[in-house]
Amino acid sequence: MRLIVPIPEYCIACGSALQQQIPEGEDRLRGVCPDCGEIHYRNPKVVVGTLIESEDQVLLCRRAIEPAEGLWTPPAGFLEMGESMAAGAARETMEEACADVEIVRPFARIDLTRIGQVHQMFLARLNDPGIGAGTESLEVKWFPWDQVPWSELAFPVVEWVMRLRMEDLDTDQHRIHHGCLHWLEVGSPMSLESYDLSDLQSLSLIP
Amino acid sequence: MRLIVPIPEYCIACGSALQQQIPEGEDRLRGVCPDCGEIHYRNPKVVVGTLIESEDQVLLCRRAIEPAEGLWTPPAGFLEMGESMAAGAARETMEEACADVEIVRPFARIDLTRIGQVHQMFLARLNDPGIGAGTESLEVKWFPWDQVPWSELAFPVVEWVMRLRMEDLDTDQHRIHHGCLHWLEVGSPMSLESYDLSDLQSLSLIP
Repeated sequence: MRLIVPIPEYCIACGSALQQQIPEGEDRLRGVCPDCGEIHYRNPKVVVGTLIESEDQVLLCRRAIEPAEGLWTPPAGFLEMGESMAAGAARETMEEACADVEIVRPFARIDLTRIGQVHQMFLARLNDPGIGAGTESLEVKWFPWDQVPWSELAFPVVEWVMRLRMEDLDTDQHRIHHGCLHWLEVGSPMSLESYDLSDLQSLSLIP
Repeated sequence: MRLIVPIPEYCIACGSALQQQIPEGEDRLRGVCPDCGEIHYRNPKVVVGTLIESEDQVLLCRRAIEPAEGLWTPPAGFLEMGESMAAGAARETMEEACADVEIVRPFARIDLTRIGQVHQMFLARLNDPGIGAGTESLEVKWFPWDQVPWSELAFPVVEWVMRLRMEDLDTDQHRIHHGCLHWLEVGSPMSLESYDLSDLQSLSLIP
C-alpha cells in the first residue's frame, strides 16, 4: 500500500481527465471534473496501532514489506471504513502479530504532515499469550524496554512514540500525547532530526 | 462538500473503469484498475474543530449550507493535506467564525463509523475578541452553557461532544474523551439514540 495519498488525475465518478481549479467558495486548487463536476478532495489518512506491553517488554514486528523492510515497528496500519479506531488497531495487531489484544487506552496521536497521515497509537495488552508473524511481518518479538533496537526502528514516528512511552515508564508518569511531526524539507525523511515536533502536548492523567 | 467518502468507479491514475476485486494479500474488496493495476483504497477522513469558551459561554455557528442548514455547530471541517490537526482546527475556526484562536488542548476524539469520519475537537480560546459569520455560516453567537440550543444542534456528534464538555464543567472535571458513534442501522442517522457509544474512554487529567 502506498504511504502518500495519490493526486487524482482522472475522475472517480466518470473517468474524465481532471482540471486543477479553485472551486467556488474555496481557497485552494482541487481536481475538478469538467464533465460531471465532481470535486476530488485529498485528505490525510488515519493510521492506528498498538504498543503491547507485558512485564516490562514491548512487542515489535520486523517488516516483511517496503518501505522499511527488515526494520522494527509496533503493529499499525490504515483505518478502514466502518471500523472504530480501537477496532482498527486490534485488527492490525491480529494481522501483523497474530496477537489478540485488549485496548487499554489511547496513548499518542501524531500528525505526519509530510505524507498526510494521522497516527493514533493505543496501549494494549494480550488477551491470549499466542503471537506470530503475519504475512507482512518477518518476525514478531518481545523486547525489554532497555533493549529496544532504536537504530533499527522503521519510521521516525515509531521512534518518537516509543521514546515518549519509555520516558513515561522511566518517570512513572501516566500521560497522553498529541503532536505533529512537521518535516523541515531538509535531510532524510527517515530521520527524526529532519522534523520539527510541533503542537506537542503531553497531558498527565490521573492513574 | 459531501460527507461520505465516495466509492471510486474509475481509476484516478488512468481513467479506466474499475473492477471490484480482493487484491493479493488482502481480505476485502477494493476498486482495482484492470489496465494500470492501481488499487483504490477508501479510508475515513479526519474532521477537526474547536470548542471555544469564554466566561462560561461557548461559541457556535449556524450553518449556511447543507447538511443541517440553519442548525448550530462548533466550527469544524475536514483536515487538509500538509496541516497539523491543531492548525486545521484553527483554520476552520477562522473560516467559519472569523475567529483567531489559540488551541488549549485536545478534548474529544470520536469515530463516526457510519460515514467514515474521525472527529478531533479541541478546547480553544480567542486571541482576539472579533468574531463574525464566515461564508458557510448564517450567524455566529456566544451561548451560555445553560442556554445551548440542544434541540437545534446540527449533528449527533456535536451533541455528544457538547454534553461531555458540559458534564465536565458541571462536575469540575478535566477529562479527555475517546470514543465511537456506531450507527445501529435503525432510526434516523441524525438522532443520538440511533447510535451505540462504543469504545468510550473518558480519562481524567491532572489540571
